[in-house]
Amino acid sequence: MAVNKIDLNSDVGESFGNYRLGMDEKIIPLISSANIACGFHAGDPIVMKRTIAVAKEHGVAPGAHPGFPDLMGFGRRKMDVSLDEIKDYVIYQMGALQAFAAAQGMALQHVKPHGALYNMAAEDLTIWDAVAEVITAVDSQLVLFVMAGPWRQELEAIGVRHGIRMAFEFFGDRAYNPDGTLVSRKLPGAVIHDHELVAEKVLKMVKEGRVVCIDGTEIELAAETICVHGDNPAALELVRNVRKSLEEAGVEIVPPASFL
Amino acid sequence: MAVNKIDLNSDVGESFGNYRLGMDEKIIPLISSANIACGFHAGDPIVMKRTIAVAKEHGVAPGAHPGFPDLMGFGRRKMDVSLDEIKDYVIYQMGALQAFAAAQGMALQHVKPHGALYNMAAEDLTIWDAVAEVITAVDSQLVLFVMAGPWRQELEAIGVRHGIRMAFEFFGDRAYNPDGTLVSRKLPGAVIHDHELVAEKVLKMVKEGRVVCIDGTEIELAAETICVHGDNPAALELVRNVRKSLEEAGVEIVPPASFL
Amino acid sequence: MAVNKIDLNSDVGESFGNYRLGMDEKIIPLISSANIACGFHAGDPIVMKRTIAVAKEHGVAPGAHPGFPDLMGFGRRKMDVSLDEIKDYVIYQMGALQAFAAAQGMALQHVKPHGALYNMAAEDLTIWDAVAEVITAVDSQLVLFVMAGPWRQELEAIGVRHGIRMAFEFFGDRAYNPDGTLVSRKLPGAVIHDHELVAEKVLKMVKEGRVVCIDGTEIELAAETICVHGDNPAALELVRNVRKSLEEAGVEIVPPASFL
Amino acid sequence: MAVNKIDLNSDVGESFGNYRLGMDEKIIPLISSANIACGFHAGDPIVMKRTIAVAKEHGVAPGAHPGFPDLMGFGRRKMDVSLDEIKDYVIYQMGALQAFAAAQGMALQHVKPHGALYNMAAEDLTIWDAVAEVITAVDSQLVLFVMAGPWRQELEAIGVRHGIRMAFEFFGDRAYNPDGTLVSRKLPGAVIHDHELVAEKVLKMVKEGRVVCIDGTEIELAAETICVHGDNPAALELVRNVRKSLEEAGVEIVPPASFL
Repeated sequence: MAVNKIDLNSDVGESFGNYRLGMDEKIIPLISSANIACGFHAGDPIVMKRTIAVAKEHGVAPGAHPGFPDLMGFGRRKMDVSLDEIKDYVIYQMGALQAFAAAQGMALQHVKPHGALYNMAAEDLTIWDAVAEVITAVDSQLVLFVMAGPWRQELEAIGVRHGIRMAFEFFGDRAYNPDGTLVSRKLPGAVIHDHELVAEKVLKMVKEGRVVCIDGTEIELAAETICVHGDNPAALELVRNVRKSLEEAGVEIVPPASFL
Repeated sequence: MAVNKIDLNSDVGESFGNYRLGMDEKIIPLISSANIACGFHAGDPIVMKRTIAVAKEHGVAPGAHPGFPDLMGFGRRKMDVSLDEIKDYVIYQMGALQAFAAAQGMALQHVKPHGALYNMAAEDLTIWDAVAEVITAVDSQLVLFVMAGPWRQELEAIGVRHGIRMAFEFFGDRAYNPDGTLVSRKLPGAVIHDHELVAEKVLKMVKEGRVVCIDGTEIELAAETICVHGDNPAALELVRNVRKSLEEAGVEIVPPASFL
Repeated sequence: MAVNKIDLNSDVGESFGNYRLGMDEKIIPLISSANIACGFHAGDPIVMKRTIAVAKEHGVAPGAHPGFPDLMGFGRRKMDVSLDEIKDYVIYQMGALQAFAAAQGMALQHVKPHGALYNMAAEDLTIWDAVAEVITAVDSQLVLFVMAGPWRQELEAIGVRHGIRMAFEFFGDRAYNPDGTLVSRKLPGAVIHDHELVAEKVLKMVKEGRVVCIDGTEIELAAETICVHGDNPAALELVRNVRKSLEEAGVEIVPPASFL
Repeated sequence: MAVNKIDLNSDVGESFGNYRLGMDEKIIPLISSANIACGFHAGDPIVMKRTIAVAKEHGVAPGAHPGFPDLMGFGRRKMDVSLDEIKDYVIYQMGALQAFAAAQGMALQHVKPHGALYNMAAEDLTIWDAVAEVITAVDSQLVLFVMAGPWRQELEAIGVRHGIRMAFEFFGDRAYNPDGTLVSRKLPGAVIHDHELVAEKVLKMVKEGRVVCIDGTEIELAAETICVHGDNPAALELVRNVRKSLEEAGVEIVPPASFL
């Protein structure tokens, strides 16, 4: 892991038609990688074009954020889909966004599955394998964002097999279980609201590659990208804090394709 | 116009989920360009992948067939959309199909707007202009399929301005008005069911660049691609007749990118 | 027209899935009729249930607000649909909302077509006729909200023929042309932002059945319901002003089914 | 269980827009209860109207066949939805179909959940409970179709609690496990293709309330309705055989609301 460089990523482009969601113009200048919704769980063609434009304006690396075809559930509901369906849903959404990037002279940097698709992949390596397979087939320069954890070696092996780079993702505002999974949002303490604490956890992960879990134990956790949110003013403030803390520690905030 | 070469194109990949439409496996071997639905008015990711595979198997050039976001109306209902919406709908669908092509080692040859979008463009050159603009922005090698007619020079000027090739399309089984428009389907004689007559009209257009209109007058009509259908056994038989007639006359049936 | 009673109606229930739109909890207590989106252009089953509940809580009469199947365009784009399609889209959406009302021991009061459907009807009486026909067929107690204007007699004749009541709708914050149509939003002065002026116009219409047009001429305009908005704090303030002005003038704000 | 009366039900109205599915005009005359898709997993407003009309023409009792909002997956993919979502999806779809029935002077007889929703309910009684709750709230005369099996008493208790009638459903062409569940379609022998054998199984269930399982053991299985299919000529022939066999045995084929 690169200790002097880290990526900040955030989900953006989640508006749809007449519906506005998020504060994209505010969060995009604060991050280095933008996960752009591709029209299945959120986003539409107009929104995708605009979001690519905002990312370009701020020199932020755009990536596809494919989800399930479930706008009503915002892609957050697990669906009993086949691996073939997952592959084709990812190809479709990735391609749609690629065209908007190409039309503005850009290329996508990465792919990060959204919501239930991400969560299902985190519980089933064959899904990461399927996603890696199709990303490579479409563009082997793309970086796949996956969840950091003790399963890193297994995921890296998938990346090697498909000839694809992976960026492991850390959740600074979420409590971890000792097995590297996230504490369920249904449990108390799952989400960390204290900005100082979040900045501390992020810095520790970046500098030491370790995280203190909810039970006080400490585990190794190497990551190249940190997930942040931009859907409300408090979230933006948290990101500013994290940036400041990282910069003061001499850590450069840059897209992972630049250092992987 | 190339008198010894002509393209046959057909709309395919129009199935959706559990719904089957068309006889793609039968019609694709008979054509040189396949217009593949991209998920807005028809088609879904699974269907798109399969249709690209069938086109590849038969050496048929794949193209995007973007339509309005109106699955319930099969993209056949005019919608009061803006040029910006049209542009972004085309980019989105084109990109989605490009990724399926890329994943199978292919590149798209062309873009042919579908249904109401095609019909609206035929009545409003600014739509052709908007579509040409975004196609060029995404991939200037793509050929845009447009309707043949007396407006050819104006459309060619649009193509020149955007640096894009156009293939003009002839409808062999439709009656023409003397102004180059198609006779409305609501009128008697609009669709020609006689296979011999269709083959004759096609051959005349290919050899002489002329068509006999519904009122008996003859007009110039240059085209590089001919629209055929494959959704029923009679349509397939008609295509076989057209092919036979063209081949006997020494006309080569090839994708337009090869001779434009 | 009842000069001592008037209805205030507003479009509500326009959220969808993860997307929030409008300030339903704030506007519903200020109106007497709630036009609830039914899932085609906006709204979803969860939102419909909740909106019926809020209407019930405040004694506001619920109505169906059917639109085109165009979530991406929020039902604001004209579509070239047939009268049969319009009829069936209205039946479908009306029925869906009826069930949510029934499940909470309520009945719908009215139907008000949304967006492009309303605008298309305002230009084509056969659409009002089609909508009236299906409303009667499903529940002849329902009131149809239509646009007020010089065409009132023709619309009333449609209502009589189908045995259905109509409530004519006035737009207090929109400038009128002398022919009774609304000044296009693309023109300056189309929307009136001065709260006092809106309250004045509303009171004049209620008391005198007349409106001063954009060119200064005055025309007759009888209406039983006034369209108001609740999607931002200024709009809510405007509605409070209108209510106050009406109440001070001794006008009762009640659902039209109570006085038609 | 009524030994001299039985219902035959089939899923119909599954076409969508330009897509045709099933042979509704052929199967509806052969059944007594029609499960009509309601626009989420299949069906659209035009199709719903037409299907109600065909059911009316043949004196067949119409029922709602609500499914998940997953047209791409035909409602066959399990989704991790909440009970509240299930309730509201059922209310919405039931209401939409009720309006089409009402517009043609009919009332719905029953509700039968579709596909993954039915399968999830069969594994989780709280789903049946949720569905029963909302059906009662909308119209307590409606009959809920549920899966027959050893869990009959528990389901009946749910029906009693909500004051709703239930019709238990038997699958004549499916092999049963000794625990009353269906043999998975992934296993050999899951679907019975022998028409005589199906007719025999149906008759045995109707006359004796028993079924021979895949392992040869015999279990009690009381049902009031039998699921049949009409999507191909062989399926229609099978239904004709079943009808003939039942009629020769003096069993009357009638909608369950008439004898429950």
